[in-house]
Amino acid sequence: MVNTDFNNIKIVLVGTSHPGNIGATARAMKTMQLNNLNLVSPKIFPSAECTARATGADDILQAAQVHDTLKAAIQDCSLVYGTTARERSIEWPVLSPADAAREIHASPRGSSIAILFGREQSGLSNEEMDLCHRAIRIPANPEYSSLNIAAAVQIISYELLIHTLDDSESNDNRLEKTPLATHQEMEMLYEHLEQTMAEVGFFDPEKPRRLMRRLKRLFNRTQLDNNELNILRGFLAAVQVKIKH
Amino acid sequence: MVNTDFNNIKIVLVGTSHPGNIGATARAMKTMQLNNLNLVSPKIFPSAECTARATGADDILQAAQVHDTLKAAIQDCSLVYGTTARERSIEWPVLSPADAAREIHASPRGSSIAILFGREQSGLSNEEMDLCHRAIRIPANPEYSSLNIAAAVQIISYELLIHTLDDSESNDNRLEKTPLATHQEMEMLYEHLEQTMAEVGFFDPEKPRRLMRRLKRLFNRTQLDNNELNILRGFLAAVQVKIKH
Repeated sequence: MVNTDFNNIKIVLVGTSHPGNIGATARAMKTMQLNNLNLVSPKIFPSAECTARATGADDILQAAQVHDTLKAAIQDCSLVYGTTARERSIEWPVLSPADAAREIHASPRGSSIAILFGREQSGLSNEEMDLCHRAIRIPANPEYSSLNIAAAVQIISYELLIHTLDDSESNDNRLEKTPLATHQEMEMLYEHLEQTMAEVGFFDPEKPRRLMRRLKRLFNRTQLDNNELNILRGFLAAVQVKIKH
Repeated sequence: MVNTDFNNIKIVLVGTSHPGNIGATARAMKTMQLNNLNLVSPKIFPSAECTARATGADDILQAAQVHDTLKAAIQDCSLVYGTTARERSIEWPVLSPADAAREIHASPRGSSIAILFGREQSGLSNEEMDLCHRAIRIPANPEYSSLNIAAAVQIISYELLIHTLDDSESNDNRLEKTPLATHQEMEMLYEHLEQTMAEVGFFDPEKPRRLMRRLKRLFNRTQLDNNELNILRGFLAAVQVKIKH
């Protein structure tokens, strides 16, 4: 089965300044059948301006979840996309909105997915991008790529909707549908890995963080399922037991 | 030749009430490289609110043409599209945004094209639709299809832009700087991994091959680059050194 349950797709606005953008985002989402809005430290919420701009999508605003941290917002998510207009120095797999929509609809049913949209002026920070498995870049004018946030949400939501309508694309060719590891499970794997690497003395003493960052990027890109996660953790545990004897 | 001259594509807003929508439309157009904005009897134009919402796309506003009638706006156009959310009793050929974009780019170079967007509350009248060659319907939530005008312009403009980008460009958006590991290097990683797993006693005694198969699938899917390969092999080597002490 393809993932067409739009409840499982979280739109996450990070550090939004202008309340009008939150309202316009709710409206953009609702026109495309999305309904799961999450706000990380919005500057002003709720507000009259926000509700006015939502124009009939106030049910989305009322159900919106507000979080103190991005980690809290994506904790149960197994696939996290960060939208970016910039070229980034560190490499993520960069998808077009259409490719991201196809991938999301092909993910195992029940997987929780988050799509992050950054601040009006500065987008997502590198630390926030590090929590993402993929980047989505909306094709834009190279000389003026500054899409309004609600406009960016509109395009992504539109792609999500039209790819559910296309029958030919609902053919699912991913063979195995073991549930994907969640953000939290992946964090536990990284801790376990870091610990084991320390125990065997494997560290670039000058750049321990860079090493972990690279490894996280590798595994985030891969999207581990639960079996794979268990194999890796089992191996790490076996290493730890062995070196204590 | 395909028609990729965006000067020839007019965005025509008919009877717009809210000046903010005109500004947001200019911004939406500019992000997608469109620049030819036409206003038919706007209620308020120009205005401070309009310019504020354009956020840097004020060149589009300054160049915008204001017309008294729709006929005047489309007089030099050979292909006129009306956007509509409603089912209309009279049948026009109804295209999706993507199909319209393909048709526009396939039209003879130099053809002037207009895409019409109606009033906030009531859209385009039947008389205005009668001036159109085609209708474009943006797929939307059947229970809430009320897209903001600038959001509708954003989607249409986005489709126009992405259909100018040819396949080679859109496929090759993965930033690969570090060379990828070769098949042979991957085989060596797998041997190293199997050996280390044996040394720490980590094996499903009944299905050792299944375990390796899963791990191979995981890493094959990931497409390791050389740095990543070296990190993993370095870690395995460190484990091997440690357990021999």
